[in-house]
Amino acid sequence: MKKITRDKLQTIFAKEIEPVIEIEPGETLLVETEDALFHTVRTEKDLYKNFTEIWNTLKGNNPVTGPIYIKGAQPGDNIAVKIEKMECFDPWTNTIQGLGGLSDFLDIKPDLPATATICSIEDGMVIYPTSKGDLKIPIAPMIGTIGVAPLVDRYRSHYHSPEHLGNVDVTDICPGNTVIMPVNVEGALLALGDCHAAQGDGELCGTALECRADVTITVDLIKKKDAKYMECPQIEYPDAIGSIGCIFMSSMDDIIRAAYRDILRRMEKYYGFDLIEAYKLITQVGEIVIGQIVPPLCTCVAKIKKEYLL
Amino acid sequence: MKKITRDKLQTIFAKEIEPVIEIEPGETLLVETEDALFHTVRTEKDLYKNFTEIWNTLKGNNPVTGPIYIKGAQPGDNIAVKIEKMECFDPWTNTIQGLGGLSDFLDIKPDLPATATICSIEDGMVIYPTSKGDLKIPIAPMIGTIGVAPLVDRYRSHYHSPEHLGNVDVTDICPGNTVIMPVNVEGALLALGDCHAAQGDGELCGTALECRADVTITVDLIKKKDAKYMECPQIEYPDAIGSIGCIFMSSMDDIIRAAYRDILRRMEKYYGFDLIEAYKLITQVGEIVIGQIVPPLCTCVAKIKKEYLL
Repeated sequence: MKKITRDKLQTIFAKEIEPVIEIEPGETLLVETEDALFHTVRTEKDLYKNFTEIWNTLKGNNPVTGPIYIKGAQPGDNIAVKIEKMECFDPWTNTIQGLGGLSDFLDIKPDLPATATICSIEDGMVIYPTSKGDLKIPIAPMIGTIGVAPLVDRYRSHYHSPEHLGNVDVTDICPGNTVIMPVNVEGALLALGDCHAAQGDGELCGTALECRADVTITVDLIKKKDAKYMECPQIEYPDAIGSIGCIFMSSMDDIIRAAYRDILRRMEKYYGFDLIEAYKLITQVGEIVIGQIVPPLCTCVAKIKKEYLL
Repeated sequence: MKKITRDKLQTIFAKEIEPVIEIEPGETLLVETEDALFHTVRTEKDLYKNFTEIWNTLKGNNPVTGPIYIKGAQPGDNIAVKIEKMECFDPWTNTIQGLGGLSDFLDIKPDLPATATICSIEDGMVIYPTSKGDLKIPIAPMIGTIGVAPLVDRYRSHYHSPEHLGNVDVTDICPGNTVIMPVNVEGALLALGDCHAAQGDGELCGTALECRADVTITVDLIKKKDAKYMECPQIEYPDAIGSIGCIFMSSMDDIIRAAYRDILRRMEKYYGFDLIEAYKLITQVGEIVIGQIVPPLCTCVAKIKKEYLL
């Protein structure tokens, strides 16, 4: 099995970035990922006051390993990335001025103190220290940032869009599930990183249980004639289908609506439902998983169990 | 056990409404509830084009059974309503112009067709007909509208507020859980109805599996000195605590933030956490359950498991 080491990092998604590896469709590979702040938060004293300080010191954040060139991938195709396995290392979390659902990223006077919490992993649990004692949080590994090169634009890896996916922080991008993305440029140029050992709904303060990880993935190519991409990146679960709402600078309302609308249109186009019938049905059995509510980024997954698609 | 029959209905929450029953704190009673459209949707031909038609015909919607006067309840106290059991009857769903997450309630030209789907219940499943065949949806009963009289204002039962709760359509208001509400006026004047046999996250088209129900509740009184109400109504789960975000005409973003903020403040005031510590912790283990995304009504529950409160 091929492997990409943790030093093959980028902080942007763009077509100009030279691939670090080429793979065949259907190939399985091991991707070592770096944490969101380049493994620089190792003690409670490793603090970042704000994003300016992060940029001055690190020249970016949410580094991704790659890009990976998928042979034969052409614009209009889809790629399907099955997450086979994840192993997490050295989790931590922190607070940073101007970041998070209860901060305002346009605030002219942010006052959230910089803090860091360093955790460890024991027997499948994150040991999370608090002033009241240690807590145990079950490890639930996920990939925070995964995406492909956009056709024209260039995005720092901190951001997201339906065209390239990117930093969506969706807990369901986890072992057992498959992420389906559009191919915008030859080879797709897949990259991933920013893994979390666990994350609550919304990633409220903006920093989950950030960690390094060893991620095993299988990458399949879906040629244009069989591709079923509508407007949103998709998650294929063993027992459900999902659409990821991820439009930069949009409200959670619009994100939820966009994701549900995408599912409805898939139900109409690929599963033979009348649109109004699909609208009524998803009202009864649709599920929303909140990804992040970290302005200017809001994400969710809208999903429906396959048993209801007949 | 006392019982209130299905004909004791109101369509407003207000202090002037004469109670239909008085109970002692701690008493268990059976409340028969009517469905959201007064049991007038019984065939696929029972259609409502829009809300004007509903109001012209029914003079309101989301009728609630009550109000129930709780002896000794005084402003500043809380009441805790434990939902012991629910039995559902005659479920249906429909579409109505101008209603739902993909309609715009301010739209000057709504064009959603009026439709109705009539279901039945068999062996714990809702039998849900579609053009592709019958689906089975597991019954997951919940109370859509439950609330108390506000101090000054008067609300139609279709609406909600943190002061009186009301029509929040939160799936976790279900058997096994307890809803905690403020007492604004003597006797509290509790009422409930608009039950659902099941509902997806967001109640997207605005109409869940609406049903009549027989609801068994136990109502406890928490006197002012022990009341722990902050800004949001609360749900007490066997293994978690929750805060209900329910501010009329607010975005889902603000609703999620309001609910999380309420939990954070409860963690600080009643569980001994530092606020920033609570913010970081809930980022890892907080859960959001989306209630409705039906403009102008958005609701959610923010929750945290009790094991993380130490």
